[in-house]
Amino acid sequence: MTTPGSIARLMEELGRLPGVGPKTAQRLAMHLLTRPRAEAVALADAIMQARERVRACSLCQNLTDLDPCSLCRSPTRDHRLICVVEEPKDVSAMEKTREYRGVYHVLHGAISPLAGVGPDDLRIRELLARIARADEPRAGSDTSVDGGLTGHVPMERPQVREIILATDPDVEGDATALYLARLLKPLGARVTRIARGVPEGGDLDYVDEVTLGKALTGRGEL
Amino acid sequence: MTTPGSIARLMEELGRLPGVGPKTAQRLAMHLLTRPRAEAVALADAIMQARERVRACSLCQNLTDLDPCSLCRSPTRDHRLICVVEEPKDVSAMEKTREYRGVYHVLHGAISPLAGVGPDDLRIRELLARIARADEPRAGSDTSVDGGLTGHVPMERPQVREIILATDPDVEGDATALYLARLLKPLGARVTRIARGVPEGGDLDYVDEVTLGKALTGRGEL
Repeated sequence: MTTPGSIARLMEELGRLPGVGPKTAQRLAMHLLTRPRAEAVALADAIMQARERVRACSLCQNLTDLDPCSLCRSPTRDHRLICVVEEPKDVSAMEKTREYRGVYHVLHGAISPLAGVGPDDLRIRELLARIARADEPRAGSDTSVDGGLTGHVPMERPQVREIILATDPDVEGDATALYLARLLKPLGARVTRIARGVPEGGDLDYVDEVTLGKALTGRGEL
Repeated sequence: MTTPGSIARLMEELGRLPGVGPKTAQRLAMHLLTRPRAEAVALADAIMQARERVRACSLCQNLTDLDPCSLCRSPTRDHRLICVVEEPKDVSAMEKTREYRGVYHVLHGAISPLAGVGPDDLRIRELLARIARADEPRAGSDTSVDGGLTGHVPMERPQVREIILATDPDVEGDATALYLARLLKPLGARVTRIARGVPEGGDLDYVDEVTLGKALTGRGEL
């Protein structure tokens, strides 16, 4: 036995992380054991604290410390615009564009019969409930500095104007978008899908034919 | 602010790990937050436990739960043969060959003037002390199942017969090996360096010229 108990266990636990093979697990374990103790403690503590505090926002289902999350609370965001994405990381990706001022809804997955994921496994009920509740007056979600201690301003939740389906541009994402479009259209809001086309900065002859085909089909007037 | 406090902190701490960029840190954080809680707790716990228990073996300086480590305690290893390596992971690599039955000495680095690492920063003193002590009788290191409770068998530590320098085949590793050879040769033991040559299974025309040159220089009689 060359790797003693607690090192072997650390490598095993690190090896469960996505994209971390035995070699990387060993490198990470050695890093955690040879760097200052405070660094390893900080990581362990960050994991525990995140698991303790983070939950799904009751409105948009994104992961958050605070419920409702900062985006759902924000008075500067357009709450009549909901962008539906598959995963929490897609929210970060959308935010980085700085193009979007609406709010989000995180499905936590996409419909995938092959992976055994059906509509009931996603946060679709919560999306429908959110749109249905949109006309009712809403208490709470006060964003003032007193943290809502001295009383809250009841805010009207505005009628949803548009739902942007920003699920991934793959088979599962498209299936999910189609499914949602059928459910959401009867509710009156505009339902849109993000555009497909050639990515910025690419070389046209390196673009795959399916993407190029979609770029042609979706061409716009100049 | 799109990523709330404790998620951002978790991503930051994960991002300190070697080879983990912001994108990977985000993926790992989401994994730790969305998989069963027990998995995240197990990782945090493994980190803390390893930091708590693991120390350098007082003989070979390898990281271990147990002092002396299982290799230094082993009665089936040849304690007259010491293989000197740079890092604990090199011990695992050597053990995987199943060719080596001696013991190890881990330097925890290599001499590198550029990185500001001198001989005093490595566990060279410990290596010299170990060889100097080799003739003295040694108590303890009892490997019987009773864990040494009922008394220990005093073992002679045998005279060191050969020191194999298995530092990395690069500038720093070579400099360290040369430095050690000069220190160790006067002590009487045989000092050897692992062979340089073409790696197994390679294509000769893909081997770099330096390696091929060393393979020529180091050629052996058939």
